[in-house]
Amino acid sequence: MADSPADPPKPPAERATPAGPSKSELKKQAKAAEKERKAAEKAAKQEELAMQKAAADIDDAVENYGPLPLNQSQSRPNRERIPISSLSQRSGETVLIRARVHTSRAQGNKMVFLNLRQRTDSVQALLSVSPGKVSKQMAKWTAGLASESIVLVEGTVERVAETIKSASVGDVEVHINTIYLISGVQVRLPFSVDDANRPETAADENDAQFNRVLLDTRLNNRVVDLRSQTNQAIFKLQGAIGDLFRDHLRSNGFLEIHSPKLQGAATESGASVFKVSYFKGNAFLAQSPQLAKQMAIAADFERVYEIGPVFRAEDSNTHRHLTEFMGLDLEMTIEEHYHEVMELLDSLFLTIFRGLSERYKDEIAVVRKQFPADEFKWREGPEGTLKITFHQAVDILVADGVPREDLDDINTENEKRLGRLIKAKYDTDYYIIDKFPMALRPFYTMPDPDDPTLSNSYDFFMRGEEILSGAQRIHDPTLLCEKMRSKGVDPDSMKPYVDAFRLGCAPHGGGGIGLERVLMLFLKLNNIRRASLFPRDPKRLEP
Amino acid sequence: MADSPADPPKPPAERATPAGPSKSELKKQAKAAEKERKAAEKAAKQEELAMQKAAADIDDAVENYGPLPLNQSQSRPNRERIPISSLSQRSGETVLIRARVHTSRAQGNKMVFLNLRQRTDSVQALLSVSPGKVSKQMAKWTAGLASESIVLVEGTVERVAETIKSASVGDVEVHINTIYLISGVQVRLPFSVDDANRPETAADENDAQFNRVLLDTRLNNRVVDLRSQTNQAIFKLQGAIGDLFRDHLRSNGFLEIHSPKLQGAATESGASVFKVSYFKGNAFLAQSPQLAKQMAIAADFERVYEIGPVFRAEDSNTHRHLTEFMGLDLEMTIEEHYHEVMELLDSLFLTIFRGLSERYKDEIAVVRKQFPADEFKWREGPEGTLKITFHQAVDILVADGVPREDLDDINTENEKRLGRLIKAKYDTDYYIIDKFPMALRPFYTMPDPDDPTLSNSYDFFMRGEEILSGAQRIHDPTLLCEKMRSKGVDPDSMKPYVDAFRLGCAPHGGGGIGLERVLMLFLKLNNIRRASLFPRDPKRLEP
Repeated sequence: MADSPADPPKPPAERATPAGPSKSELKKQAKAAEKERKAAEKAAKQEELAMQKAAADIDDAVENYGPLPLNQSQSRPNRERIPISSLSQRSGETVLIRARVHTSRAQGNKMVFLNLRQRTDSVQALLSVSPGKVSKQMAKWTAGLASESIVLVEGTVERVAETIKSASVGDVEVHINTIYLISGVQVRLPFSVDDANRPETAADENDAQFNRVLLDTRLNNRVVDLRSQTNQAIFKLQGAIGDLFRDHLRSNGFLEIHSPKLQGAATESGASVFKVSYFKGNAFLAQSPQLAKQMAIAADFERVYEIGPVFRAEDSNTHRHLTEFMGLDLEMTIEEHYHEVMELLDSLFLTIFRGLSERYKDEIAVVRKQFPADEFKWREGPEGTLKITFHQAVDILVADGVPREDLDDINTENEKRLGRLIKAKYDTDYYIIDKFPMALRPFYTMPDPDDPTLSNSYDFFMRGEEILSGAQRIHDPTLLCEKMRSKGVDPDSMKPYVDAFRLGCAPHGGGGIGLERVLMLFLKLNNIRRASLFPRDPKRLEP
Repeated sequence: MADSPADPPKPPAERATPAGPSKSELKKQAKAAEKERKAAEKAAKQEELAMQKAAADIDDAVENYGPLPLNQSQSRPNRERIPISSLSQRSGETVLIRARVHTSRAQGNKMVFLNLRQRTDSVQALLSVSPGKVSKQMAKWTAGLASESIVLVEGTVERVAETIKSASVGDVEVHINTIYLISGVQVRLPFSVDDANRPETAADENDAQFNRVLLDTRLNNRVVDLRSQTNQAIFKLQGAIGDLFRDHLRSNGFLEIHSPKLQGAATESGASVFKVSYFKGNAFLAQSPQLAKQMAIAADFERVYEIGPVFRAEDSNTHRHLTEFMGLDLEMTIEEHYHEVMELLDSLFLTIFRGLSERYKDEIAVVRKQFPADEFKWREGPEGTLKITFHQAVDILVADGVPREDLDDINTENEKRLGRLIKAKYDTDYYIIDKFPMALRPFYTMPDPDDPTLSNSYDFFMRGEEILSGAQRIHDPTLLCEKMRSKGVDPDSMKPYVDAFRLGCAPHGGGGIGLERVLMLFLKLNNIRRASLFPRDPKRLEP
């Protein structure tokens, strides 16, 4: 007590005063002094507590919360980070979690609720002020964390009585012991990830109170948009389609090839080819691997596939065109009939549909919340996939009232109409149209043996939109040159290609699938840009 | 006999003659007539046989050999074609085979030996003239088949006493019953596939008698070159590397992404970027998916990989540069230390090396015949892959006599020298160099926390050549902008990229692998063009 800053005041007797006070006055003075002393004592005690608390808070700041130094791999303690998706199995354990702060909400000044997010998973985390463990400052700092900050949290996993609806993992919550900031947010978010998860138009009046983010805004700020659960699921499904495509082809003896995108000449159809400055000359971007994969067949590779970018210099801004998209291409020799190829492609699509529906239920359900759609339907069992000829397709449309003279080709509008008619009659979103008129197909398409106005070619459809175009190709160089000339292509301008057939080539066929279209139509995303990570169209080259 | 064309002559008695012949003369005449009759009978029989044989030959021409009509899928009898590789198991069976005529050789006019080829497999087929079955015409036609023609053969598989060395399947041969031409050869072959299978230089004087085909001739006629067993094996191995890469990453939680090759700005390093005419403006071809995959990390995809073309507008015609190559790229978040990435990449390479060596022994053996090389070596077991720092690498070179002042960077020549020194000392063709000087790395590389002149970056090497470059990246936008400016890059010119970090991004790292380089160096092909299906360099845009 000697060191106390609030020593009791000196007794009044020691004061020099002209007249001595009365006895009652002395008593009064002593009482006041005593009161003063007690007050000072109390103040001192409070101050001491405050200082102890301040010291504890300093410890908190150093040990329990705050920004971490920039991670430059300073150390490696090998402490495991736990995925949110597995927390239900870790009730009672103390875990370390790296996650985004989806939302942060203070309740009074003693409690903070965080929604922590990892991709499609989220969990509630709770921070409560508790002496010596969690200070008010720590709570204040945590409550102030910006949405989309990345934190490292240590806490215990506790089972909750009532399911937390705002989290995907709702049967547990994390009671935070320590929380550190790994990466902050330096700019104003263009929209929240919750906004990004919402459909672009309100479902009803009640729903109308929430922010809507239009497609262009999303694409301009694609990094934030992609963090939505919907997009995390969409691109997981995109990866799954690629995996299913490859696995099916590998198990059917196909070899993956990589053909050059830089071409010496503007082949196939010069009009829709991008020109590249190539040193002192020019090159052109391949609008498909068509020529290369056919040359691979002439080079005896028998069955080949390629997954690679396809470039189309078409200035069209539709819901289903990109200037750069992923082509899933294949080519194979045929022994007797081009239906060997068509059937392999059919089995490939069935594998993809089954794989997505069986193994990715959760992701599809996540996407459905933002993009409501009927489940994608196809035909299973002995009847198999619906296959009709182009003529039959025309007849179906004519019977529905489309003038036959409008149907030399089936335009996009009539394609969709046909899709609706087929869905109504056959209950399938997936079908094949075979035997297209030769006039509608490129020069390398093999004509039908019985009717030269038709061709050995087919398109595949999902929800009334084309997702694959394919055919038997002409392997005979004489017929090939004849067809090239008839379509205004000089065979000499494509000599290495034509020579491949002059050197002997087996009969073959194949097809090209647009990855983004399959993804868009399976999920009914309604715009192909939503199925591309960083889409490119005539007006968009960024981000 | 009444219808016989050789009725016996009428008896002499019925002839009108001036004087009757003597009895002995009559006897003589009768004998002569009988002889004449017999001769006529014999001639008639021979003529009949000849006509029967001719008729049989006509049948041959129609049914047993000759060119088939153009396969336009006229019919589909569903007759299985048998791969040559499985013929050893089909001794005694009659099989149908589609194959190339590798060589055709007549022995006299009654026998023809064909070497039939499918990719890396070949078998001897034999056609022997046999009455009613195989005519001389059929033998002549078969002997005249041009090399590289594609035929459909039906024959019986017969075991042979002595192994046929000229065929990969040497324990059986095919005895041909029918042979049809599916696709002929309309041009003179630039070289034979046997020539293509030979090393480009003779091993000894004895070997000097054979044709050599130089690389440029091969690449100009790539379709024929690719038919060689060597190339069939090389590209099977290329496919295998891709499969092993993907399988390893998939099983480690990576998602495949596809980032656009068309970019709005010439980023990373403007000098080596191709310019594209993009409608009324310009675009640029991505020289790596670096920016996109980092943005995918900022968008929470956690672990991503991409297999796609990479474009480099460098006018350098070395053995190891292409203007377009396949990048195997990956990027992942890190929790504590960038060695998490380095170790994952290491395990990826070990998986690839083991996979190739264990599962593709035959293909590697085929390639070795044309490209002799020591087996590729790496370190297994607890000691693991050799990892040294850049400083240690410099010390090794200095100890070998390279002046230290030449080693601010390690040039290609010194890289190879280092490879030889390491091979001699550690008996490995595969190693990692860690901690490169910051000055040698791009702006997005994370500096070392203790020594800012160093960086958290690494290169991987095979046989003394770099096959992967990678690093921890800067996820802090302030430091990133600082480093950009210090390397002369305006952060505003890459705003969507920098903004991705301003929106919060986890610490991360990755690397990029050149597919063709890995293939070239594993097999020691000595020129990267041999590891690319249709290579592109400053002087080559075709085929």
